[in-house]
Amino acid sequence: MCIFLWLSAGDCPAQSVTKKKAQNYKKSPTRANPPPACLPYKIRRVRVALCLCMEEMKDTALLVIDMQRDFVEADGALPVAGAAATVGEIARCAAEMRRRGATVVHVVRAHHPSGSDAETFRRRLFESGGGYCVEGTRGAEIVDGLAPCPDDVVVRKTRFSGFFRTELDEVLRSRGIARVVVAGTQYPNCIRATAVDALARDYRVEVATDCCSAASEAVAVANVADMRLMGIRCEPWRRLSEFCAEPIA
Amino acid sequence: MCIFLWLSAGDCPAQSVTKKKAQNYKKSPTRANPPPACLPYKIRRVRVALCLCMEEMKDTALLVIDMQRDFVEADGALPVAGAAATVGEIARCAAEMRRRGATVVHVVRAHHPSGSDAETFRRRLFESGGGYCVEGTRGAEIVDGLAPCPDDVVVRKTRFSGFFRTELDEVLRSRGIARVVVAGTQYPNCIRATAVDALARDYRVEVATDCCSAASEAVAVANVADMRLMGIRCEPWRRLSEFCAEPIA
Repeated sequence: MCIFLWLSAGDCPAQSVTKKKAQNYKKSPTRANPPPACLPYKIRRVRVALCLCMEEMKDTALLVIDMQRDFVEADGALPVAGAAATVGEIARCAAEMRRRGATVVHVVRAHHPSGSDAETFRRRLFESGGGYCVEGTRGAEIVDGLAPCPDDVVVRKTRFSGFFRTELDEVLRSRGIARVVVAGTQYPNCIRATAVDALARDYRVEVATDCCSAASEAVAVANVADMRLMGIRCEPWRRLSEFCAEPIA
Repeated sequence: MCIFLWLSAGDCPAQSVTKKKAQNYKKSPTRANPPPACLPYKIRRVRVALCLCMEEMKDTALLVIDMQRDFVEADGALPVAGAAATVGEIARCAAEMRRRGATVVHVVRAHHPSGSDAETFRRRLFESGGGYCVEGTRGAEIVDGLAPCPDDVVVRKTRFSGFFRTELDEVLRSRGIARVVVAGTQYPNCIRATAVDALARDYRVEVATDCCSAASEAVAVANVADMRLMGIRCEPWRRLSEFCAEPIA
């Protein structure tokens, strides 16, 4: 949350502030360690930008989709090539968005052991005690490194789209969310279905390309091309709109 | 509709039926012109196959999507390359499916002149009286050659998916539809969004590849590949399941 917003008009007599004093403030900008009466212009600019960012992402949600062991880990039930490689970037993006006031929503599969709530063409996978993302099993867990924070939201789904018969739309509306950033796996199925459903509901939709994966690069490229033509912005997360040009993290 | 089903057990004394009499029956198989007591085996077999086909497609709907002048004709507002070339095949497929007892649903765009009900990224197209598929205009009309028959259903939509906030699901459920065959334009947007939404609702989904189009062959191929991996059968309509190997038309 934004604690204070410090603005100064006119020229600053920066000559009166030592470099060391300014650096100390930069390291620990708290109320207990208040800013000097006037900081060099460069430091003031950074501080203002930080505060504005923290306010402006309150209308944004990061949707982290299907980053569960069964889809991400090599010995999972339905591993997606490249999903494991995105864990670090998703974690950094999520941390940054939380700091800026955005909501982080983990959208995950959760199936009955019988598979009766899975897509019909996948139900055979549940025969003989198999299946994927069976609720309560290790395969359904969110992978290490992306564990939800206390303020995050977890939404369970049984289909590709995170909006299909879930509370996702209501969660977003109740928080005043107007924009969603989509991350997770995989492009042609759950990423795209969720992005298209968000678009249909008039959210502004962006896809963080360095936080998404598919079975192959060709599949990823084809899906990104299609989504861009639908009006969905697809970029690495640091280039998505309303992020500062030089992210703080 | 199937009026009567004629089966005969055991060997047939076909020698007592003249060739001309059998041909007359084949041309006009009505109750007013009833079949002779026994027809040669070949004709009996055709008649039984026809009746079975007419029965078996009662649980099927053909969804003809967005085949409107603005998307199909070269001078339309948002023409799709290749859409015009599919009109003939869609018409043949629809005629065949009607004969076999299937429901044909025309799913079409219908927008307010202001564009206020269009996707947000497309609303600018409606400025200065422009737009596409504005209800009541020529561009919103279904193209020549695919005009709805009296028993067809027309569903209006404002988003990619034919299921999004429309009565389509209710129409299909009320008719006992378990399988949908998707045709129309274009692959990455309305075809795929509708197919994925049908899949989510547990319909058996098939895409008639010779009845669909996209901006390029590469886009069509990529989308078909993705949909097949979702469990959606994608084939030219004569090869879709439950069509006879040699169609009647």
